[in-house]
Amino acid sequence: MSGRLIGIGTGPGDPELLTLKAVRALAEADVVAHFAKDGRSGNARATVAGFLRPEVVELPLRYPVTTEIATSEPAYGAAIGGFYARSAEAVESHLRAGRTVAVLSEGDPLFYGSYMHLHVRLAPRYAAEVIPGVTAMSGSWSQAGLPLVQGDDVLSVLPGTLGEAELTRRLGDCEAAVIMKVGRNLPKIRRALAAAGKLDRAVYVERATMAATATLRLADKPDELAPYFSLVLVPGWECRP
Amino acid sequence: MSGRLIGIGTGPGDPELLTLKAVRALAEADVVAHFAKDGRSGNARATVAGFLRPEVVELPLRYPVTTEIATSEPAYGAAIGGFYARSAEAVESHLRAGRTVAVLSEGDPLFYGSYMHLHVRLAPRYAAEVIPGVTAMSGSWSQAGLPLVQGDDVLSVLPGTLGEAELTRRLGDCEAAVIMKVGRNLPKIRRALAAAGKLDRAVYVERATMAATATLRLADKPDELAPYFSLVLVPGWECRP
Repeated sequence: MSGRLIGIGTGPGDPELLTLKAVRALAEADVVAHFAKDGRSGNARATVAGFLRPEVVELPLRYPVTTEIATSEPAYGAAIGGFYARSAEAVESHLRAGRTVAVLSEGDPLFYGSYMHLHVRLAPRYAAEVIPGVTAMSGSWSQAGLPLVQGDDVLSVLPGTLGEAELTRRLGDCEAAVIMKVGRNLPKIRRALAAAGKLDRAVYVERATMAATATLRLADKPDELAPYFSLVLVPGWECRP
Repeated sequence: MSGRLIGIGTGPGDPELLTLKAVRALAEADVVAHFAKDGRSGNARATVAGFLRPEVVELPLRYPVTTEIATSEPAYGAAIGGFYARSAEAVESHLRAGRTVAVLSEGDPLFYGSYMHLHVRLAPRYAAEVIPGVTAMSGSWSQAGLPLVQGDDVLSVLPGTLGEAELTRRLGDCEAAVIMKVGRNLPKIRRALAAAGKLDRAVYVERATMAATATLRLADKPDELAPYFSLVLVPGWECRP
């Protein structure tokens, strides 16, 4: 008898943005796994806190401390690859025992989520289901009340880690954009938006749908401090009435 | 006393993919409005059918029959603009009477949704809230179990209505792509994917998360028939383990 793997999208942060299907899967899971940094339990775990059964087995998957290694170095790739392999083994030991393991994923599991590393390793051998979630970007533009794309608009989702020239080129080649992974890339993102003539339209959203959220025009943001959970939105639909 | 406007994302189709917040808003609404074509009630209305109060007032907003006018013609723009203006007036009459009006939107309201036309007309004058939803694209890649983007991947969301050369160029300039509005554009989309060297990786998903769904490699699809609710996915994350 072998178990079942479920990737659960927990949405942008507000527990009310969980889907009915996610809530049901949490109630049915024997084990709930979640990725965690620095011993903290993370945002996905906080989002589902009110929906876990008291007797559920929790499996925190703790990222190795890799902050001293640049992500471009081979040593980083080796450290993180080993971590995902060990995490998959930890989940697999429960699957082999016939348990249902739910893996939490902020936003949507297959959209830049760590769950993907478990899915590609385990889905070929175990029953696996992915429950989509509301993405952080949907949470951000909804909270801002900002119509993002309409009609024949092209939307580009861009990591803020791209080089400045590349970011500028891509911002000039689409109607709408979402810039992810803002953090310490904010000064570069600001310059690229200005060079592409889109700084005036850009909106900065921090911790969308969470308690400590903030939304403001990027041009009005007085500092360059941005937490991990922040995004920059450039709305399309320029011919709106 | 004036009312409240709520744009509700109803997700990709499966009623279990409604959020808890959407279900609560449906229970609190005095009026539930939805866009409808050809006298049919549409997918969003079908998704929420089990969550409407028996005494709720329904406000179907019926698209004018414009199939005989090309969308590029000014007459089309005038017809559809008039329709959205009249729809906003119909919603506003309820807001003015102090009612809470929920407007259904397939997927996410501010992501290519008709709700946007009401939002820009009414949100400046009435309390408005947007409840984000799971997009059709998230529903599609989750159902297909297809990891879409990871790390520094760029994702392009492309309308299938783009010209063939433009579609080819953009497909060659990103790690991952979602092609919306497939329908009768499928033969062109297929040619553009082949020219960009990505036909082999493309996955076709029809009516994701609904009862009559289908998922297959686009290269294996034997015909060019695609309903409105279909998408083509090109996954990124090429360095996956």
